[in-house]
Amino acid sequence: MERTLVAEAVSKVGQTVTLKGWVNTRRDHGKIIFIDLRDRSGIVQVVCGDDAKSLRSEYVVAITGQVKARPEKLVNKNLPTGTIEIQAEKIEVISQSEELPFDMGKEVLDVELPTLLDYRALTLRHPRVQAIFKVQEVVIDSFRKALQAKDFVEFQAPNIISAIPEGGAEVFRVKYFEHEAFLSQSPQLYKSLLVGDFERVFSVNKVFRAEPSVTTRHITEVVSLDAEFGFIDSWLDVLEMQEYVVRFIFGQVEEKCQKELALYGATLPKLADKIPLIKLRDAQQIIYERTSRDVREEKDLAPEDEREICRWSAEKHHSDLVFVSHFLTKKKPFYVYPDPVDPTFALSVDLIGRGVEWSSGGQRLNDYQQIRDNLKEWGLKEEEVTLYLQSFRYGVPPLGGFALGAERVTMHILGLKNVREASMFPRDMERIDVRLNQ
Amino acid sequence: MERTLVAEAVSKVGQTVTLKGWVNTRRDHGKIIFIDLRDRSGIVQVVCGDDAKSLRSEYVVAITGQVKARPEKLVNKNLPTGTIEIQAEKIEVISQSEELPFDMGKEVLDVELPTLLDYRALTLRHPRVQAIFKVQEVVIDSFRKALQAKDFVEFQAPNIISAIPEGGAEVFRVKYFEHEAFLSQSPQLYKSLLVGDFERVFSVNKVFRAEPSVTTRHITEVVSLDAEFGFIDSWLDVLEMQEYVVRFIFGQVEEKCQKELALYGATLPKLADKIPLIKLRDAQQIIYERTSRDVREEKDLAPEDEREICRWSAEKHHSDLVFVSHFLTKKKPFYVYPDPVDPTFALSVDLIGRGVEWSSGGQRLNDYQQIRDNLKEWGLKEEEVTLYLQSFRYGVPPLGGFALGAERVTMHILGLKNVREASMFPRDMERIDVRLNQ
Repeated sequence: MERTLVAEAVSKVGQTVTLKGWVNTRRDHGKIIFIDLRDRSGIVQVVCGDDAKSLRSEYVVAITGQVKARPEKLVNKNLPTGTIEIQAEKIEVISQSEELPFDMGKEVLDVELPTLLDYRALTLRHPRVQAIFKVQEVVIDSFRKALQAKDFVEFQAPNIISAIPEGGAEVFRVKYFEHEAFLSQSPQLYKSLLVGDFERVFSVNKVFRAEPSVTTRHITEVVSLDAEFGFIDSWLDVLEMQEYVVRFIFGQVEEKCQKELALYGATLPKLADKIPLIKLRDAQQIIYERTSRDVREEKDLAPEDEREICRWSAEKHHSDLVFVSHFLTKKKPFYVYPDPVDPTFALSVDLIGRGVEWSSGGQRLNDYQQIRDNLKEWGLKEEEVTLYLQSFRYGVPPLGGFALGAERVTMHILGLKNVREASMFPRDMERIDVRLNQ
Repeated sequence: MERTLVAEAVSKVGQTVTLKGWVNTRRDHGKIIFIDLRDRSGIVQVVCGDDAKSLRSEYVVAITGQVKARPEKLVNKNLPTGTIEIQAEKIEVISQSEELPFDMGKEVLDVELPTLLDYRALTLRHPRVQAIFKVQEVVIDSFRKALQAKDFVEFQAPNIISAIPEGGAEVFRVKYFEHEAFLSQSPQLYKSLLVGDFERVFSVNKVFRAEPSVTTRHITEVVSLDAEFGFIDSWLDVLEMQEYVVRFIFGQVEEKCQKELALYGATLPKLADKIPLIKLRDAQQIIYERTSRDVREEKDLAPEDEREICRWSAEKHHSDLVFVSHFLTKKKPFYVYPDPVDPTFALSVDLIGRGVEWSSGGQRLNDYQQIRDNLKEWGLKEEEVTLYLQSFRYGVPPLGGFALGAERVTMHILGLKNVREASMFPRDMERIDVRLNQ
């Protein structure tokens, strides 16, 4: 018999169907055994007899039976299929499961992070864990859709690179035949040079950071959502595009992930008509006035500063997101665009949300000679950025862009405590799938 | 004035517009200078006076002028904007270009492959080169759309892996803190294990092959289009899904890339009602009968065999694509599914198109014990595939899948001679952007 998905069974009351999926839980009530059957579309209750006795959690089964409407008082309002149950007539075991190392049937999986990851193949079956990656899929897909609607070309950014013009401390080295190569920390130079070719480009790509510390915010392999475009009239065009993209993503998550948000009791960040924009020095002045901590000469925002400026933004502007601009030019990479009004500060912007950095971006240099001068000033070699320089040698319009980390966005939308939860197979200093020192 | 795109100007006859883009070519006719202006939407002719004299190819300019209908006899039917020209009133140089190393104004770029790649930032501006990546973008995007429509979940396959269960000859090694790690050659084990979690998954991801030879078919960093799904009734379900995806991709390319196909005089591979399916041994018999070359005991198809079986398929079945199945089990990886009728041969399938392999796939083992037995038989260690084994330990339905290389598909659709042309930034033994030995 043709397979019916669990979610489709709701509309087949009175019919006999064959469902296929996993035994989510088994509850024995004397001669009656209740199976919660799980497939990719949801979970449904199956009423079985003795023949279900051999079934254990995670067995893969095909169950043929009649779809019955539940009596009014037995309707389960917490389950999309709560109006029906299946009266099993035939149960076939497709694949067996060994006994589980922990209870997968609880609404919230009760395991610590290391166990969650040590058993990743198993824990990814849990509906609440799957919800994370449903949200992430929507985040990534709507990033693409937002930019496709604005005429951006999707490109595949390379991962193996031949030089590390931005410094080598946190870069992974690759033995590349007889040469040394590196894993890309950012597609920045590629997306910028491609503005000379396609005007508007974006990429969903991996970036690699050999972060030598274990924090809740860092993993070594990250999914980066990168955009860059030319013919901007001002750096504010970059902010506008980024705000459009973020709003589009939120809108899609709101529309498509109600169930997933509910599982985490999460709400999307609050946004007013416009994301407020504040310069670093002004932000620091506000922090000083609010907290008496004098950070006014600091070169960057510390984590507690990011949290404070977010509180200020929420209170004064009713926005959980805030743009902070005008970081110190010399603390930024060579391609940053100095503000003509005061070149000490750059037209670079961080998007801070719910107390932490979500993304960075801004305007980039497009004048060939100025780029060459900066390379020299930053102590870099032209031959390390050959293709990048080549683009600007042959004419590139004013440009800018931004990057969002898919895992971080997912983490902050759902309020996860550790970024590893938002990576299907997180890598860090101590783990590639399994722990490295066992 | 608000920017008008070149393609939009066609519908603005009589209006004054500002166009922004690159000088594609300049033709001097005494006091009149013709500029072909290029932006992301196309190319249009601009009629200028003396003030255009300083413009050179690839200068970035803003040109304000009136859109004029061309007289009937001057209409250029080869250009989508051929019914109009712009009478320039004001020209502003946004960014200058140095003199070009070769003529970028020709319809077909007249440079050898090494030059094409040495000047990649520049040559990617050529409309005929851009066409390749337009087709590739459609191929990748329609791969996603085809599978999303079938309920597949998109996941981000990891690139850094801790072990190389399938052998280490052509793998890149990464220094991972105090450990040795590797770049993934295939997301096979990840997509298979995820069938236990999501039933149906796909991924657009990088795979890395340390191919120690320089051929027209190999690059070291490849965009792989991977799909895998469970609850198949038979290995033929895998072929059916693959055929659906390939037809969907062709349909989208046909619909969206007419201009690009025309630039290469390319037509999509011919397909009959169904892609023919033939077993390796039967294919070899046919090759023997057609050519008298006795390949009937060979373990695989050689390149000339692939070409011959494609000729046979085109002649007998009017199909440029053909499935070849039942390769030798022991020549395949440990997870391959042996045909129960004769386990010497496996339920693995290559899709051969226009004389070369496009993809491979098939059914995979899903029985935990059988997988463990095979690991032993193939001489592999269980601890090298921990998460993969974990999935099957806890129940996975019958499954299968396939993978397509985005660059190869692009190459064969357009009839390109070298796969490097179909990679924006191709990497090989001798090149990462620039040549490694200079």
